[in-house]
Amino acid sequence: MEMDRTYNFNPGPAALPLEVLEQGRDSFIEFAGQGMSLLEMSHRSKPVERMIAETEQLLLELIGLEDAGYRVLFMSGGASAQFALLAMNLLTAGKAGRYVLAGSFSEKAYEEALTVGAAEVLASGKEAGWARLPSIEVALTALTEEDTAYVHVTTNNTIEGSQFKTFPDTGGIPLIGDMTSDILSRKIDWTRFAMFYAGAQKNLGPAGVTAVVIREDLLAASAAAKIPAIFRYATYASNNSLYNTPPVHSIYMMKLMLEWTARQGGVAAMETRSAEKAALLYEAIDGSGGFYRGIVEKPDRSAMNATWRLPDESLEKAFAQEAQAAGFAGLAGHRSVGGIRASIYNGVPVEACRALAGFMNDFRKRRG
Amino acid sequence: MEMDRTYNFNPGPAALPLEVLEQGRDSFIEFAGQGMSLLEMSHRSKPVERMIAETEQLLLELIGLEDAGYRVLFMSGGASAQFALLAMNLLTAGKAGRYVLAGSFSEKAYEEALTVGAAEVLASGKEAGWARLPSIEVALTALTEEDTAYVHVTTNNTIEGSQFKTFPDTGGIPLIGDMTSDILSRKIDWTRFAMFYAGAQKNLGPAGVTAVVIREDLLAASAAAKIPAIFRYATYASNNSLYNTPPVHSIYMMKLMLEWTARQGGVAAMETRSAEKAALLYEAIDGSGGFYRGIVEKPDRSAMNATWRLPDESLEKAFAQEAQAAGFAGLAGHRSVGGIRASIYNGVPVEACRALAGFMNDFRKRRG
Ligand SMILES: Cc1ncc(COP(=O)(O)O)c(C=O)c1O
Ligand SMILES: Cc1ncc(COP(=O)(O)O)c(C=O)c1O
Ligand SMILES: [Mg+2]
Ligand SMILES: [Mg+2]
Ligand SMILES: [Mg+2]
Ligand SMILES: [Mg+2]
Repeated sequence: MEMDRTYNFNPGPAALPLEVLEQGRDSFIEFAGQGMSLLEMSHRSKPVERMIAETEQLLLELIGLEDAGYRVLFMSGGASAQFALLAMNLLTAGKAGRYVLAGSFSEKAYEEALTVGAAEVLASGKEAGWARLPSIEVALTALTEEDTAYVHVTTNNTIEGSQFKTFPDTGGIPLIGDMTSDILSRKIDWTRFAMFYAGAQKNLGPAGVTAVVIREDLLAASAAAKIPAIFRYATYASNNSLYNTPPVHSIYMMKLMLEWTARQGGVAAMETRSAEKAALLYEAIDGSGGFYRGIVEKPDRSAMNATWRLPDESLEKAFAQEAQAAGFAGLAGHRSVGGIRASIYNGVPVEACRALAGFMNDFRKRRG
Repeated sequence: MEMDRTYNFNPGPAALPLEVLEQGRDSFIEFAGQGMSLLEMSHRSKPVERMIAETEQLLLELIGLEDAGYRVLFMSGGASAQFALLAMNLLTAGKAGRYVLAGSFSEKAYEEALTVGAAEVLASGKEAGWARLPSIEVALTALTEEDTAYVHVTTNNTIEGSQFKTFPDTGGIPLIGDMTSDILSRKIDWTRFAMFYAGAQKNLGPAGVTAVVIREDLLAASAAAKIPAIFRYATYASNNSLYNTPPVHSIYMMKLMLEWTARQGGVAAMETRSAEKAALLYEAIDGSGGFYRGIVEKPDRSAMNATWRLPDESLEKAFAQEAQAAGFAGLAGHRSVGGIRASIYNGVPVEACRALAGFMNDFRKRRG
């Protein structure tokens, strides 16, 4: 069965390990010896409550944040809902949320915050056409806890293909990370972040749930926000994400994906694998004598989304089409950027990248 | 396999037809001949776009609202998110949202609206201990389009076990229905409602998505609301629920459930079946010589959630425990009401109700 599978470079929803899919499927008719499917079980039943608690625990363990004062909330609405919710929960009067702009998702986060309260641009890579990351460190020096509710950064820019390699110490100012497209792909100092979130549909499973990892002091602040209970982070924390009916099966898929990640060797193993996969593609680009040109400057390149251009748009179209015909899916660049994008999240095997690099070399020889 | 299955009376997530579960499972490894799972496919791929459009069309067809100026939005966060979102989208300045209170979910809807803007109680059954439905008609006469943004009613009270049988003509005032626990279970005049919504996890599939059926004039009003784009109904309508990553597999499960509903004979068949199922239980209650006592007065009883009490709490506990041991799951009443509740949504077969009625008679003979 594995042989017939497409090499899947979709930007998200994205490739998942076959064994995770098989395990997820096996819960559909019967689960936990209850004579019913997981999908038919009450979210307040013991097996589901336990499953959700275990998923929280697994995620904290993988990032080494157990007993470090963080909770995991399982929320809905995608990472895009977090753009609004973090401002609703954490933008207190008299302070601004400050945004590092490094790609279009970070711009969206900023624009949504503007509909809620005071949001400011802290640094921007827009004038550089998103080809270079802006420096966060320099901009930070001007801020104080009194004028800044939080600093927001998108750790990996899915559409453009850039990725921050280090994160500053923001002292008493909460640093918030949108890690939708690179969570669990590398070791970072997670404690630099007061909160980070990720839509599941890249490294955490299929679409349908968003993980929010949040420090307890931010939960306390959120408890005071005058917003609907269903949108308050504190509501999810105090109810173990069971205030209302959560997307049970999506959380279960996340659990299976976390267990798979742990079996592979955890975040350290993912980092090694990601570097190997990215190197295969970037070497094909850099060794192409200029036929393939990376969109992002080398130091800022992403190990999750590799983006590149070909000499002209008709060659780019031909590349995507021939690749599709050869069994490589999802390679067309985002409409706002053009060119080619290969998304190589944790579920994408090294073998897929090796095969794609081979196709790239072959295509270049034929068409370059 | 069917023989070993528990009789599932869970209040939601709830019983689903085995064939729907089997079909849903079959998309987990491969879908639409693409060499990948439905869970790995881009939400912007043709097969997924088509699947979502077909789900919208199917729901409109089942309720006879095709070409009637309504759209279906597939949203996240459960029905509870709608409590907040409808107020955020539709509570215009100078007007109040008016709430018919008939059970605890309608109270929650009202309380969430209070965090957003002006909300008022239009009629309440609280003093009657939720055992009787309040009259909507009488209260309506005092309202005008100038002072009322909308009237909100929970068509079926899941926890208490009551159900509105008719809905008033509210003229130019939008009537909004929370139909989470009885959508597609009976023929009603849907055009009386300007908008209605339902969390999927009773009659529409497993948890993970909420269907919002909304008339186009309300979409226009929502487009003007100064709220985050991700929370605007108009955003979902103009993007066919693909503004951001939707819960793809949850929508697919809804599609399968809608197709199953159509195969059974649609809403008319569900109404007949629901009446038959409810009659089995209410006859066991009413024929018990007072051993079982219905919690809701007869004219207001629900055909989706039957609630009753036994002579004392220890008998209620024994009933739930013995029923569980005999293969009937999910019968404990909600903690706020006590007693017994049997939820008999569309996915619950008549046979399950017949078996439960038999168990009730047997238990009464032994313990009454
Ligand atoms: C970095 C980043 N943030 C936010 C989003 C939006 O996520 P969602 O579609 O779950 O709202 C994405 C989606 O690709 C993303 O890559
Ligand atoms: C009538 C009604 N409204 C709202 C809800 C809340 O739904 P959710 O858990 O999807 O937020 C429920 C849940 O049972 C319900 O029955
Ligand atoms: Mg971006
Ligand atoms: Mg989500
Ligand atoms: Mg209710
Ligand atoms: Mg939902």
